[in-house]
Amino acid sequence: MENWVRMSEKGRHAVRLARAFLAAIAEPPAPALAGFVARHGACRAVEVIQRGKAPPDVLAEIEARYQHVSAEELLAATEAAGAQLVVPEEPDWPGGAVENLTGAREVGLPEIAEPIALWVRGRASLAAVLDQAVSVVGARAASGYGEHVAAEFGHGLANAGFTVVSGAAYGIDGAAHRGALAAGGRTVAFLACGVDIDYPAGHSRLLRAVAEQGAVVSEYPPGTAPRKHRFLVRNRLIAAAGRATVVVEAGARSGAGNTANTADALGRPVLAVPGPVTAKNSVGCHGMVRSGQAVLVTSVEQVMEVISPLGVPGPVEVVGTHRRTDGLHPRAQRLHDSLRGAAGASAEELARDCGLPLGEVRALLPELELSGFAVRTDRGWSIAR
Amino acid sequence: MENWVRMSEKGRHAVRLARAFLAAIAEPPAPALAGFVARHGACRAVEVIQRGKAPPDVLAEIEARYQHVSAEELLAATEAAGAQLVVPEEPDWPGGAVENLTGAREVGLPEIAEPIALWVRGRASLAAVLDQAVSVVGARAASGYGEHVAAEFGHGLANAGFTVVSGAAYGIDGAAHRGALAAGGRTVAFLACGVDIDYPAGHSRLLRAVAEQGAVVSEYPPGTAPRKHRFLVRNRLIAAAGRATVVVEAGARSGAGNTANTADALGRPVLAVPGPVTAKNSVGCHGMVRSGQAVLVTSVEQVMEVISPLGVPGPVEVVGTHRRTDGLHPRAQRLHDSLRGAAGASAEELARDCGLPLGEVRALLPELELSGFAVRTDRGWSIAR
Repeated sequence: MENWVRMSEKGRHAVRLARAFLAAIAEPPAPALAGFVARHGACRAVEVIQRGKAPPDVLAEIEARYQHVSAEELLAATEAAGAQLVVPEEPDWPGGAVENLTGAREVGLPEIAEPIALWVRGRASLAAVLDQAVSVVGARAASGYGEHVAAEFGHGLANAGFTVVSGAAYGIDGAAHRGALAAGGRTVAFLACGVDIDYPAGHSRLLRAVAEQGAVVSEYPPGTAPRKHRFLVRNRLIAAAGRATVVVEAGARSGAGNTANTADALGRPVLAVPGPVTAKNSVGCHGMVRSGQAVLVTSVEQVMEVISPLGVPGPVEVVGTHRRTDGLHPRAQRLHDSLRGAAGASAEELARDCGLPLGEVRALLPELELSGFAVRTDRGWSIAR
Repeated sequence: MENWVRMSEKGRHAVRLARAFLAAIAEPPAPALAGFVARHGACRAVEVIQRGKAPPDVLAEIEARYQHVSAEELLAATEAAGAQLVVPEEPDWPGGAVENLTGAREVGLPEIAEPIALWVRGRASLAAVLDQAVSVVGARAASGYGEHVAAEFGHGLANAGFTVVSGAAYGIDGAAHRGALAAGGRTVAFLACGVDIDYPAGHSRLLRAVAEQGAVVSEYPPGTAPRKHRFLVRNRLIAAAGRATVVVEAGARSGAGNTANTADALGRPVLAVPGPVTAKNSVGCHGMVRSGQAVLVTSVEQVMEVISPLGVPGPVEVVGTHRRTDGLHPRAQRLHDSLRGAAGASAEELARDCGLPLGEVRALLPELELSGFAVRTDRGWSIAR
């Protein structure tokens, strides 16, 4: 992987073109393609595919589409939608939030693969906005009680400095986003369609507001329509992006239950809000608590006890998570994210890339080295693997 | 202990007089007095006390009252109230339900002692009615939701053959009793005052109905007024009488929480019904679930899964309980209860006492012997200790 920090704009454009192409030629999740790209790099993977030399398992995933995709058109559509493509090679890639998803496959969930690229509407840095996030999900046909609680939780979590992640659906999702927006906080919506499509249509104003105070994100190229199975596939990103997933109202069989299962499989705590036993909308939440999958929570404070035992956002030890960088201070994580794209960069280059003062970067780098996150080589600083 | 079955009516009356006296001279719980009576028997204990020879710890408990109590007057008041005194010496004593309370002391609860006698309004056999019981408790200032759920649980448990035990208070208690009554089932109210006092006054009709379909019970002599501390003392009997205690709505600090702590300490499962997180009335229930003290339940079926894993009342293995006789068939338990009062009785005497057909008693006795509950001696059948 080339050093993103020192890469020319032309080189970065080539990577984006390659990733846009790869993200569009297979229906996510595409585990064979994702593995192929991880082994060869995006540009080389495209070369092999275009020469007709893709291995059979990859070919099976891409053959329906790969001769019909134009990366240039995709990037033009992305620009036209006021969106941008974020790729794993760049520092703004939210690695901690959307990688290491394979744990979910091990417990028998359907195929899981990391996204090949993400389309983003919004001006915030995706890595920064997903740095300390909590997912809030639940029923579309929510009750007034459920929407009230979701809005309270969205508001309280945003006030406490957490980004509220959800899926922009009617009901609980929308209420959670709105609560975060009302608090002037950050919120991210993961869509099951292209970011150029306002779905549901009644939430187009909400989506605009989410993009302004956070980000509207999708692994689906612009123009992709929402389909039922895409919601389940999208749910894994919501489950992965939160340090915990809070379920506010869920029926006996629900999409929120699917998100909760995935969060659980990924080692993220699942928290469920109880409700009246007379309401069908709380059956799923009560079931998760009874089975031991979820911890019962009744307040934002109880959510924070789980994700931030010291009671403040900041260095966080998440119960059962697998993210090595969870213990890092947010600014150290920002530098760490810059290191991800660099194979031998100077402190000056890293400071420019992550936007932290040079003096702070010079102080943080030895700390990251000591804690095993960074290595210093002849050619400069790199991420420790 | 003399053989109750073969005891003369005069002998039985003497025991009742002694127990009435002992129950009235100390404020329950009176652990020193209870231990003294257990060691010496009721009649001998009274003799020693009346000769002024009670040991100092017993004297400390009784000195305020023992010279002012007339057992004859108490029994007259009992009869006048249409009540009866039930004593541990007789087969109708619900040993499994109100004995072995010391576990609660071990975990730091206030003083615990078994009741010295019980006053009962109602025609049912107390041992039979408490044979398979579930306690349902909760807030006095219950919500409409809470009362609805308590009535549903009372109705469902009674329908399934369980006796619903509660405290006759306004709110959850009353709704649970009413639900059981509406199902034509059995229900028992433990009072914190004499059974001749309708407390709360607004529940006098309810108490009459409870006495008709079950029993109104108290360890306090007739004429004893309700006092705040007596509710806490009474709660231990509610906790002990149920195979499990279901908490329907409880505030942050509540009498129901006290009953739940006691049930937990006694090894009885505590089950809590969730509710809206916006309601103060459910704070206690949610707290019990979060701390692991209670299992969340949303239906009568889920209560039955805990107390009756095979799904039917009958031979029941209660999780964490200490009652040896829980595994016995209800009719075998009835015979076992008769054996409790007999030191060497014939099958005929036992059949008369417990009301089971002689043939059945003859068949059950060797079974009880085999399973270690009964012994056959030269003088007849006795309970195995």
